[in-house]
Amino acid sequence: MTTERQKLGMASLRLEALGDGIFSIAMTILAVELTVPMVKGPEWRDLGEGLHHISRDLLCYVISFLVLGIMWFGHRMMFEYIGKSNRYFIFLGILFYLMVCLVPFSTRILAANTLKWFAILMYAVNLSLCNLTLYAQWVYATKRKSLIHTPIPAEVRKEANLLFLVSPVVYSVAIIFGFFFPKISIAIFIITPALYLLPSKLDKYLP
Amino acid sequence: MTTERQKLGMASLRLEALGDGIFSIAMTILAVELTVPMVKGPEWRDLGEGLHHISRDLLCYVISFLVLGIMWFGHRMMFEYIGKSNRYFIFLGILFYLMVCLVPFSTRILAANTLKWFAILMYAVNLSLCNLTLYAQWVYATKRKSLIHTPIPAEVRKEANLLFLVSPVVYSVAIIFGFFFPKISIAIFIITPALYLLPSKLDKYLP
Amino acid sequence: MTTERQKLGMASLRLEALGDGIFSIAMTILAVELTVPMVKGPEWRDLGEGLHHISRDLLCYVISFLVLGIMWFGHRMMFEYIGKSNRYFIFLGILFYLMVCLVPFSTRILAANTLKWFAILMYAVNLSLCNLTLYAQWVYATKRKSLIHTPIPAEVRKEANLLFLVSPVVYSVAIIFGFFFPKISIAIFIITPALYLLPSKLDKYLP
Amino acid sequence: MTTERQKLGMASLRLEALGDGIFSIAMTILAVELTVPMVKGPEWRDLGEGLHHISRDLLCYVISFLVLGIMWFGHRMMFEYIGKSNRYFIFLGILFYLMVCLVPFSTRILAANTLKWFAILMYAVNLSLCNLTLYAQWVYATKRKSLIHTPIPAEVRKEANLLFLVSPVVYSVAIIFGFFFPKISIAIFIITPALYLLPSKLDKYLP
Repeated sequence: MTTERQKLGMASLRLEALGDGIFSIAMTILAVELTVPMVKGPEWRDLGEGLHHISRDLLCYVISFLVLGIMWFGHRMMFEYIGKSNRYFIFLGILFYLMVCLVPFSTRILAANTLKWFAILMYAVNLSLCNLTLYAQWVYATKRKSLIHTPIPAEVRKEANLLFLVSPVVYSVAIIFGFFFPKISIAIFIITPALYLLPSKLDKYLP
Repeated sequence: MTTERQKLGMASLRLEALGDGIFSIAMTILAVELTVPMVKGPEWRDLGEGLHHISRDLLCYVISFLVLGIMWFGHRMMFEYIGKSNRYFIFLGILFYLMVCLVPFSTRILAANTLKWFAILMYAVNLSLCNLTLYAQWVYATKRKSLIHTPIPAEVRKEANLLFLVSPVVYSVAIIFGFFFPKISIAIFIITPALYLLPSKLDKYLP
Repeated sequence: MTTERQKLGMASLRLEALGDGIFSIAMTILAVELTVPMVKGPEWRDLGEGLHHISRDLLCYVISFLVLGIMWFGHRMMFEYIGKSNRYFIFLGILFYLMVCLVPFSTRILAANTLKWFAILMYAVNLSLCNLTLYAQWVYATKRKSLIHTPIPAEVRKEANLLFLVSPVVYSVAIIFGFFFPKISIAIFIITPALYLLPSKLDKYLP
Repeated sequence: MTTERQKLGMASLRLEALGDGIFSIAMTILAVELTVPMVKGPEWRDLGEGLHHISRDLLCYVISFLVLGIMWFGHRMMFEYIGKSNRYFIFLGILFYLMVCLVPFSTRILAANTLKWFAILMYAVNLSLCNLTLYAQWVYATKRKSLIHTPIPAEVRKEANLLFLVSPVVYSVAIIFGFFFPKISIAIFIITPALYLLPSKLDKYLP
């Protein structure tokens, strides 16, 4: 018979450390992909042209970096409430990291085919799956009381659900625009991270 | 004369941190190797063809990522019982990390030669050596009482031995099939990670 | 109504861990970019020629590594006073990391076009933006008392402001020289890290 | 006037974390450099030939990985005694990391020119500088009492000095052999890590 005392600690700290490692590498790798611009002459115009050639790469770099940064913030916030882990929770975490590690890949696809529907589709699907696997961890942990160390206020629960599900919805809209007006899809990719800077009900729980 | 008081702490935390770093980089690098698919036209069919060309790469990415994730879980679990380290234990740890760092390499070989016996052989040998070096750490630590901080129940010990040794056995079978029916070997590589999702006797020790 | 008790801990530890990851990768990647020198014969002269060909790369590697090291030190020092984080502080942190991750990129540009004004411009702008985004975190945190755990002496505050703003000024000078005497700009890049080795008023607060 | 109370904590933990990150990336990058072997036919002989072509790369990978592992152990051991840091100590740490990050680079040079004197020279110089910058940290910290948290027994001090200085001496011998009998140099590179596995006086301080 297993008594409570025999239970292992299984603090979530190392899962978080693995995630911090994966995020920091995925974010840094985004910039490794940038190619050195060719500047053909000594004029400002030449620099302008050189930068113009890598402008899509730079744009995609900045968007993906900010998106990963926001996702990292969500992941980090989650562990203010969750303090333990088990086999299934860690497996969901691994699925989330699998999706995060694909972001530099789908960013490369988008940078190479910025206004093509399929690149927009793959990028949006990748980001949505990141969010959904992160959400799956949240849902699992909130149902499995033994993983929680700080009780989650109803307001936080509601707001978190909203924040988790906004981006898959927004990215679905981006996919649809991708077939007709791809520039609008790109605009959506640019605007979405900015949404997460708006004041939120969660702020009053933060220092 | 050395008294107990003179002994150094030698917590295993930094060895775990090194491992978390190595796992996160090895996992992220798997995805760096993926090449941007060529999509030649605006049709869904063209996307399908483009994806078809990188389907092996994607499959090998997903398999290796999950295998490394499960191995990371084993490594993480082990340190629920082990809390200290010494020179020999750290050396075994370095050997384990040496094998883990080769996984992106053997994954590249498998992705480039998916149904060739030698690629299956090298991949299976690499994964088996990861498991065996991890197992060596476990065996050494369980014999060296001073490294243990939580006593290991007999049931855990038995189940752990089983879990450590299942995959070298399964991968040996994959190697043999590789000479005759390589598709079965690939199927084994796909199924093995799933085995680790089955309910286990260890679960009752987890939160 | 929110009482103090409901506030989350939001320790800054994981933001620091993300930063340590990003710095360690950015620093290591600098060296990955170095190409193996071609040594065409068995003489010392041949080795000299081979090294001469990669001397700019090596110089840029060393400068950028030391600059990142000093920036890491500034980042690390800051968190002797700051102990908590919130959404805006983390967003400023992400902007800082975005700039840090671009350093290997602007180093590559400088290594490929060492004496060109535009490479000097881009490198200096990148390093200045690193410093300014780090400074923004410092300013925000010093105004948001709830993030501080150790009171900041007036002297430290003054010295920190000075140290944060010296390098953007120095790098602006380097940009101007870049149009006329680019070698002076490179000299400035070499000397600036050395400035941070001079005795500082901060030293008396350190062990 | 500065009283003891005003002194900052400046725990060395984050410097250690930066180091763990740098070591884990440098070690993983070693394996990234390995090229997929070409296996031209279905025979065992073909696999043998393919492996033969990358045998130098594999050998250099294993040697450098073990050397970095041992160096990491030395670094880790050092912080059993050192618990705090200051500006100069961190600067020495950055110099050490600068040298560690060059190891994948000098390994690449050695793998491409295994029996050439200049490759042996550069590799041996790189490894020696790693050791000497690590030693500089040790010397500085042992002189600066305020950085030490566990008193260092005389025996440990003596043994550590020996271990730090053995490898620069051994690598100097390897450099000399490199001009006449380069195979002996390679043998020295292979044997040196093994030396660190011999029983040591330090072992009795470990669990």
